[in-house]
Amino acid sequence: MRRASQRDNTYELYYWRGLPGRGEFVRLTLEAAGVAYRDIAQEGGDGAAALTSPMWAIDGNILKTPSFAPPLLRHGELVIGQTANILGYLGPRHDLAPDDEAGRLWVQQLQLTLADWVLEIHDTHHPIASGLHYEDQAEEAARRSEEFLLSRLPKYLDYFDGVIALSPGPYLAGPRMSYADLSLFLVVEGLRYAFPTAMRRREACHPAISTLVEAVLAHPPLATYWHSPRRQAFGDGLFRFYPELDALARKSDD
Amino acid sequence: MRRASQRDNTYELYYWRGLPGRGEFVRLTLEAAGVAYRDIAQEGGDGAAALTSPMWAIDGNILKTPSFAPPLLRHGELVIGQTANILGYLGPRHDLAPDDEAGRLWVQQLQLTLADWVLEIHDTHHPIASGLHYEDQAEEAARRSEEFLLSRLPKYLDYFDGVIALSPGPYLAGPRMSYADLSLFLVVEGLRYAFPTAMRRREACHPAISTLVEAVLAHPPLATYWHSPRRQAFGDGLFRFYPELDALARKSDD
Repeated sequence: MRRASQRDNTYELYYWRGLPGRGEFVRLTLEAAGVAYRDIAQEGGDGAAALTSPMWAIDGNILKTPSFAPPLLRHGELVIGQTANILGYLGPRHDLAPDDEAGRLWVQQLQLTLADWVLEIHDTHHPIASGLHYEDQAEEAARRSEEFLLSRLPKYLDYFDGVIALSPGPYLAGPRMSYADLSLFLVVEGLRYAFPTAMRRREACHPAISTLVEAVLAHPPLATYWHSPRRQAFGDGLFRFYPELDALARKSDD
Repeated sequence: MRRASQRDNTYELYYWRGLPGRGEFVRLTLEAAGVAYRDIAQEGGDGAAALTSPMWAIDGNILKTPSFAPPLLRHGELVIGQTANILGYLGPRHDLAPDDEAGRLWVQQLQLTLADWVLEIHDTHHPIASGLHYEDQAEEAARRSEEFLLSRLPKYLDYFDGVIALSPGPYLAGPRMSYADLSLFLVVEGLRYAFPTAMRRREACHPAISTLVEAVLAHPPLATYWHSPRRQAFGDGLFRFYPELDALARKSDD
């Protein structure tokens, strides 16, 4: 049975059960592409139990390309790790990346910048160790969040605002929506959840970013997914709402 | 004059002057490839003054592909940002990446995992904000470093040790040295500088990693560069030596 699924060409996503996390960047690309895929750990069964970090094996078979951490995408004989690498593989196959090399390098550069941003967002609530609870690093989290809201959040928003201004539009890299647009959409939605006070104020100064988010959400397959019960709500994972961290935004208004 | 250099095909690296930093990953690949390149900011003149973060323009010309931060590589009309993206461009052009798509995805996955590791190493001394001095976050740095030495350093070493064990060898992805091998070499050298106490003990348990580092350094063009006065010593930047952080390694020996 498993051998059969290995041989066919259905995309299989492996990611932790119960949180959208970095797996959601892959889901958005697969959903926008309108392709069928299996979300292994969400299916129940033993898929979730099999996930580890590092991930050395699937179904008891040692991987030739083990991953340091999920998400992983299996496609036929390929097992691909690292979110940006997965998207760089999917994008050109599903019209979610430019056709030329220069365009593909540019979209991947944007994706890697988004990955840096995402790690900084994660570290606002886990500045000491991802293996410790938030409560055990809440004091440091407050300090890091204050710095993030004061200097890093505006710097990243300014950058992507500038990229949109340079683009022939309406998307980051021109007329075609790419996986980087989908990822920026998710980062903005996640930030609206985690830091609503700061984002209300900052987005008012960066209307081009809000416009791009709306354009992505106007894409029918993506909108259908985003508003469906299949989409997992934010909560644990990358984007978290702690009122005491959100409240720090007011300080930088002084 | 500048127009002429724009039209030719010499690689131009843009990175902060006075520290090896992330620019060194690009330099190692260019040096191992044995190709000529210009290291703009190191040349003196106004190259260093022109560097900014974000980097919107070069020589007064607005970039179509601005970078959030250096390093940038200019090659003819292309201006490429993000270290892993630059290496993914250079590798296949200079026999420092596999020929097939699966192999290239694998090497890029390893590079992105190294990039994650590098960011964690950086954050051992800057856990609150990259814009603050170490001295202003030394207490948090001690806490983060202790966690890093206890749980993250062995986890990454175990992972790359396992990757080497799975490889037909002698390199991470088989018989051909790739840009990911060069990057692992730099990370290990940087860690030996930053955390000598921990690395002495950990490397004794991971001889395959030390062997790979030696294999990389046996590559003539790389060895020539590494032992030349052109190579910038560690000091500021990603890999920093603070005796009080290094000393934390002893705790985890208990």
